[in-house]
Amino acid sequence: MKRSLGPRALLYPTPVVVVGSYDAAGRPNAMTAAWAGIACSQPPCLSVSIRRARHSYGSILERRAFTVNLASQDLVREVDYFGLASGATEDKFTVAGLTPVRAGTVDAPGIAEFPIVIECRLLHATDLGVHTQFVGEVLEVQADEAVLGPGGLPDVTLLRPLLYSPGQSAYYGIGPRVAQAFSVGKRIGEVGSPAESAHQ
Amino acid sequence: MKRSLGPRALLYPTPVVVVGSYDAAGRPNAMTAAWAGIACSQPPCLSVSIRRARHSYGSILERRAFTVNLASQDLVREVDYFGLASGATEDKFTVAGLTPVRAGTVDAPGIAEFPIVIECRLLHATDLGVHTQFVGEVLEVQADEAVLGPGGLPDVTLLRPLLYSPGQSAYYGIGPRVAQAFSVGKRIGEVGSPAESAHQ
Repeated sequence: MKRSLGPRALLYPTPVVVVGSYDAAGRPNAMTAAWAGIACSQPPCLSVSIRRARHSYGSILERRAFTVNLASQDLVREVDYFGLASGATEDKFTVAGLTPVRAGTVDAPGIAEFPIVIECRLLHATDLGVHTQFVGEVLEVQADEAVLGPGGLPDVTLLRPLLYSPGQSAYYGIGPRVAQAFSVGKRIGEVGSPAESAHQ
Repeated sequence: MKRSLGPRALLYPTPVVVVGSYDAAGRPNAMTAAWAGIACSQPPCLSVSIRRARHSYGSILERRAFTVNLASQDLVREVDYFGLASGATEDKFTVAGLTPVRAGTVDAPGIAEFPIVIECRLLHATDLGVHTQFVGEVLEVQADEAVLGPGGLPDVTLLRPLLYSPGQSAYYGIGPRVAQAFSVGKRIGEVGSPAESAHQ
């Protein structure tokens, strides 16, 4: 039996990212966001939505650049802190004891201690309401060797990323592997080989 | 030690959604997507990226509407099938044994057996490359009572949603709760009460 929840911004789960930027004074700043996702495979693009009041908002527009930093569960206190404090009044990197590192391809800082740093060039900024959605083209991904699987790409069981449950305002971890994609569904209706990499 | 992975569309984890639409002939169709996210809190908006070659692409543009259906882990075979087959050649609802239900607020079908159905009106379609990003305003969320927590909103431990790991092409479940958001980070730097609902 379904119940109406009305119009609400819900989706389960969302990722948890920390967005790095330089402000007008050149100070490195970072803020946490959970309204983010992959927007395009080629060119690779990510989107992240940010409120206008955030200190990072102007920084990203001015420098046309940002980084998307992905944490492991061990960094949950730092991730949450980056969402609570404002770079307008605090040097969040210093308070959190983390290290800003200038990205190689864009004018924005990554976070050295985070296992994955994604460098983005701003492509679009769309004002949707209380949030502006920034779409950035990924120019480079840097990843700790410790989180890479045998194929050379990140393995979520090694990365142990945080995820977010809207409404519950809680962070969760990754659970067990459920199934291989582009595979488990073939048992239904005798579908042949996938015509394209449909999810991607 | 970090290693360069080059420019890649990576983010961990992504949600897994099934997008419902009516095609030009009025037939209900649905396809799986993992490039999706929350785009704005107010008005509530979701974004989902779809390749131009997909049958759903034209349907969404024509009807200016779509649904975002969230599965539990038990529906993983159906979710994967909706990503493998094409509505141009198959009646996917019939093959999967699932029931399309016309949404109350938009011209698109939801999936009755899925625990959460989100009804969206198309706001923006941005061509980014191989994917076009659709941003929709959420006009209504319908949820099974069985997945609602005490506060009346979905609880991920009851919903047991699927998540996707890009590069690994695998579905995973939700793991244990790690921490409360807007709380665990207060221990760093003695931050006071949050000035705003920063992640949302």
